[in-house]
Amino acid sequence: MIKMVKKRQKIVVIGGGTGTFTILSGLKKYPQFELSAIVSMMDSGGSNRVIRDEFGLLPTSDIRQVMVALASHNSDRILRKLFTYRYTKGVGISGMTFGNLFMAALSDIYKGDQKKAIEETCKILNVSGNIIPVTFDKTNLVATYSNGKKISGEHNIDEPEQSQGEYKITNLEVEPKAKANKDAVSAIKDADYVILGPGDFYTSTLSNVVVDHISSALRKTQAKLIFIVNLMTKFGETNDFKAMDFIHEIKKYIDRVPDIVVMDNSGSFPEKIIKKYRTENAKPVEDDLSSNDPILKGITIIRKSLVSDKVYNKPTSDVLNRSLIRHDSIKLARVILECCGH
Amino acid sequence: MIKMVKKRQKIVVIGGGTGTFTILSGLKKYPQFELSAIVSMMDSGGSNRVIRDEFGLLPTSDIRQVMVALASHNSDRILRKLFTYRYTKGVGISGMTFGNLFMAALSDIYKGDQKKAIEETCKILNVSGNIIPVTFDKTNLVATYSNGKKISGEHNIDEPEQSQGEYKITNLEVEPKAKANKDAVSAIKDADYVILGPGDFYTSTLSNVVVDHISSALRKTQAKLIFIVNLMTKFGETNDFKAMDFIHEIKKYIDRVPDIVVMDNSGSFPEKIIKKYRTENAKPVEDDLSSNDPILKGITIIRKSLVSDKVYNKPTSDVLNRSLIRHDSIKLARVILECCGH
Repeated sequence: MIKMVKKRQKIVVIGGGTGTFTILSGLKKYPQFELSAIVSMMDSGGSNRVIRDEFGLLPTSDIRQVMVALASHNSDRILRKLFTYRYTKGVGISGMTFGNLFMAALSDIYKGDQKKAIEETCKILNVSGNIIPVTFDKTNLVATYSNGKKISGEHNIDEPEQSQGEYKITNLEVEPKAKANKDAVSAIKDADYVILGPGDFYTSTLSNVVVDHISSALRKTQAKLIFIVNLMTKFGETNDFKAMDFIHEIKKYIDRVPDIVVMDNSGSFPEKIIKKYRTENAKPVEDDLSSNDPILKGITIIRKSLVSDKVYNKPTSDVLNRSLIRHDSIKLARVILECCGH
Repeated sequence: MIKMVKKRQKIVVIGGGTGTFTILSGLKKYPQFELSAIVSMMDSGGSNRVIRDEFGLLPTSDIRQVMVALASHNSDRILRKLFTYRYTKGVGISGMTFGNLFMAALSDIYKGDQKKAIEETCKILNVSGNIIPVTFDKTNLVATYSNGKKISGEHNIDEPEQSQGEYKITNLEVEPKAKANKDAVSAIKDADYVILGPGDFYTSTLSNVVVDHISSALRKTQAKLIFIVNLMTKFGETNDFKAMDFIHEIKKYIDRVPDIVVMDNSGSFPEKIIKKYRTENAKPVEDDLSSNDPILKGITIIRKSLVSDKVYNKPTSDVLNRSLIRHDSIKLARVILECCGH
């Protein structure tokens, strides 16, 4: 009897933050995928500031979230819970995440070898899939705005001052220049599918793309490029963005448009939530994708209801803003399954 | 064929700190013993001050050390290493131990249930044996000295000011009064052997005894009481103590003398180390035990070379004084094996 062994499809997810957590949490339930996550290493908010400035390490919040997303259900439940835990007490400790402190301790035990510390943490959490820091170089995101101003630091771009946040980001780069992790480049090269989004567009998605060699790898790979459009705009990053604005920006930074664009079509969100977003100068991303648009020629547009029924609350100990409307991890995974011909 | 199943001997070790770590590390290698450790919960130095004052929790440094001592070799090696790790960087974080931060996070996850947090940590570290906090009440050690002065707080007694440390401790108690953990009382009641020492005599050993019901349990139990005499005196606790001084103090606090006294007879220690101790007003404990002394009538005195060949250095990030001459865990375990008739 000849047993047919179907090769697993290689999916690379590029990002960091909650959006990446969501998509990976869904995809990991499907054994037909071999998952890799290329993760942004420029986070500078909250817990990461301490990790960067006081410990002299690379920030690990994005890594930490991806680890929890890909942790096997065989791994210790309590350890997974701890990795999402943020301290609320202790001078200098309050606001820190357990996961970041865990990896900082391990890095010290391994004499500063953060790569080794990340690998060991993956083993302890029984992570299935590859977690690939986009770079091991210490670097900062730098955004130039339509008023000519330059802002440095992921956190400052992510949560800008009111007056600055109104301007459009005209250029994103890293300073100093960062070399891509070789594993990231080869993962993109060998992938069947590469997924961009959802997540903070400049600070979680494009922050990976602007690392040297990542953009060219994305341009050259045979992999199909899937882009998942965000549900909401974000003040200071994607003010008033419609779906096409995202596509144009991707074209600008990668010189390639996605092969597949995935867009939520749930219809209107509850007024109460929309109102809450309005206070943060955010609103639903309008669907202005048209097959007649020359730039979209030949590309697949998938419209589905993708929103989670859960409404998220901000944990009080976390000073950063977290979105309230989220993609549903299972709905996202199913749409990717469809993209991949299952 | 009738298989003879020999019942494991129940050994209860009472203490906290390095001495208890040493003896448990040795004893756990012998499967013929069923080990329980009753651990002091009054630590107030270093990492514990933060745990007590800022987190509002019971101090866990002694618990943490005992956990590592009893962690199975099947448990994750890295986790065991992390539990002995102390941060050297980060404002408010430097000086904290990973293990204490681990248990503080778990306690918060379990809505303040520190007992549950300790139990879960034992599971994660695959601890063999029972770890029993002497009390779950928040309390402080209070020492009264021969000059009439009262000092509150384990750390203040452990490392007193020069002028105060010269006086003898005439009374040790806890304030407010603390109820013994029921499990501690029944472990003592059911034990075959109870071991006191080695370790800081007032702040690690007697600190357990002065908790309500522990002293009476020790008086009433059928278990044989083994006392391991410290190698060195300690400034502010046991200035100029000879072996008999320890016995008299045990008699005073428990109203019982040990059945077996274990005393090192290695002879003289290297002059370099003695000199180092002299700067801390400490010296080797003199053996003045005499079988002719009426108080020692009928008790067994075991004299053996028990000192570790390793000389310990203080970790620089740890502000507390750590002893340089230590008991050897295997030598101690072998002498206990002998006490227990093996």
